[in-house]
Amino acid sequence: MPEKVRIALDAMGGDHGPAVVVAGAELALARHPQNEFLFFGNTAQVAPLVAARPVLQSASQLVHTDIAVRMEDKPSQALRRGRWKSSMWLAIEAVKKRQADVAVSAGNTGALMAMSKFELKTLAGIERPAIAALWPTLRGESVVLDVGASIGADAEHLVDLAVMGAAMARILLGLPRPTVGLLNIGVEEVKGLEQVRDAARILREEPLPDLDYVGFVEGDDIGRGKADVVVTEGFAGNIALKTAEGTARQVAEYLRDALSRSLGARIGYLFARSAFAQLRERMDPRRANGGVFLGLNGIVIKSHGSTDAEGYAAAIEVGDGMVREQLLTKITAALARPGKESRRLLGGAVS
Amino acid sequence: MPEKVRIALDAMGGDHGPAVVVAGAELALARHPQNEFLFFGNTAQVAPLVAARPVLQSASQLVHTDIAVRMEDKPSQALRRGRWKSSMWLAIEAVKKRQADVAVSAGNTGALMAMSKFELKTLAGIERPAIAALWPTLRGESVVLDVGASIGADAEHLVDLAVMGAAMARILLGLPRPTVGLLNIGVEEVKGLEQVRDAARILREEPLPDLDYVGFVEGDDIGRGKADVVVTEGFAGNIALKTAEGTARQVAEYLRDALSRSLGARIGYLFARSAFAQLRERMDPRRANGGVFLGLNGIVIKSHGSTDAEGYAAAIEVGDGMVREQLLTKITAALARPGKESRRLLGGAVS
Repeated sequence: MPEKVRIALDAMGGDHGPAVVVAGAELALARHPQNEFLFFGNTAQVAPLVAARPVLQSASQLVHTDIAVRMEDKPSQALRRGRWKSSMWLAIEAVKKRQADVAVSAGNTGALMAMSKFELKTLAGIERPAIAALWPTLRGESVVLDVGASIGADAEHLVDLAVMGAAMARILLGLPRPTVGLLNIGVEEVKGLEQVRDAARILREEPLPDLDYVGFVEGDDIGRGKADVVVTEGFAGNIALKTAEGTARQVAEYLRDALSRSLGARIGYLFARSAFAQLRERMDPRRANGGVFLGLNGIVIKSHGSTDAEGYAAAIEVGDGMVREQLLTKITAALARPGKESRRLLGGAVS
Repeated sequence: MPEKVRIALDAMGGDHGPAVVVAGAELALARHPQNEFLFFGNTAQVAPLVAARPVLQSASQLVHTDIAVRMEDKPSQALRRGRWKSSMWLAIEAVKKRQADVAVSAGNTGALMAMSKFELKTLAGIERPAIAALWPTLRGESVVLDVGASIGADAEHLVDLAVMGAAMARILLGLPRPTVGLLNIGVEEVKGLEQVRDAARILREEPLPDLDYVGFVEGDDIGRGKADVVVTEGFAGNIALKTAEGTARQVAEYLRDALSRSLGARIGYLFARSAFAQLRERMDPRRANGGVFLGLNGIVIKSHGSTDAEGYAAAIEVGDGMVREQLLTKITAALARPGKESRRLLGGAVS
């Protein structure tokens, strides 16, 4: 376990840019004082913010670039404009050159994924990377992936997602053998997509000592915490994640509305305000901030673009945990499952 | 507009069977006293329940069958066991024979869809039926489809879903020209599945006077009410619907938990209890009960299997509205879009 983790930050990424990134780094440093930060961005903006925080400053280096990927850039545009020189690119490059252990960005997700693939390349045997999210559940938290890195997945890719997600859950949730479910519609074995059914067969039949396959799960099982790891391809996964976020906001809005309507409700709110504070904390989207890019030769964390310093610190924390617990080493070991190669040699007889 | 609507009920469907179906019919009849009911099921169970409600009895006929589709039957099993003779089959058959205007069942969704397709057949030009759900939003309600009738959809099918969903929204939501969005990941034109992009092009370019295409929507836009009709294929749609239901339950659970933890919270709850009653009502899943099967030569409504009499009455009400406002006539007119045939003749050049 490394004593210190070196964290490369895309200081220009996100809706609020350096203000949130620098303040988030300060919060994260307070929790892990031995860590070091590499800030990439416009030093005219970043340097004064860092200088105002002496403890952070002594743990930080700044690298100047005046090119930043814009939130609205398409991945191809971002690569054209920002390759070799943007703050996002340079943060990822620091991981590639082993100047940093992990890169964090709150910038444009598509651009971050495109640049990460381009620079870091996928792990041996992995064709496409994935984004894994931490999902708050009634039982704690689950890892859900892929939440939007790529559309569609064959059976082997779904099994790779299961293996990588389980490695992440072992680290983040501290579970020796996380339960894994495949997201599907209907729980009967006959239902759903052929690829999902084939993946279920592989997960049932292949000896995978580090995960416990528990079958299909449906959309409403995610929040119940029915599986520690929920596996799906990126289109459905992204829609599930966004729908859950939207529904939580919608219910919070209903609640706010109901509690402001009458005097009795407002008095009730005062009596129960510590309960509501607790509710707010449980529903706080910042707690689960930090999408992990899995399947690359390096660790990259995507923070929500609209988060604040507390949320950004949570994203850094996720990256820190992944490095300390040697996510890549664990994933690489777990991915080397003998059945996969033999199925591949058999010409994809499974799918 | 027909004066009375004749409603065929699968009295044996759902987790609670005739008790909920008969009580639900009584509630629905109170709202539309001119309607008539045809109950299909085991008369030993159904008749006493109906006889105990004289007003309902005078508006009802009972048809005996002792065969019922089980909730756990696969569609193929249900067809094998229940064709020609189960309560579910007979309810749909009444629509086919024009003895009823609409069939309602709280039974097994897969079986209900299989039997409906088998008996009623799809409308001209529609290859696969869809299930449309009413989705509560911050602005009111939206129609979301397909929530699980079939997996995958080409561009023309997505456009058919848009047209059918818009017809339903015109009726249920009373909107002359509902807004329609395509569910996608990311809002940029470049993102997402090819079929979704092709459907977007058709919806933008083809003159469709009865709907207003507003572009892509993401999962969190559904609850915001960004579009009156949200269109997607059945796998993603089912996952979105179930995830939203699960998240709403999860937040309600957090709230219950928070409010029971301290004395202050319990006192606060007492002061604010009318606010909480209002919140419960807004979040009541029974209000949006009643999935509408679209694309068939007949109207079939699927009630949640676990609903109570109030929820079942809501499902009957949805069916009643669809009949009164002549959903099928409106859909058939709206589906006859000239571009579709010419694209089909061009050999699917679009998709």
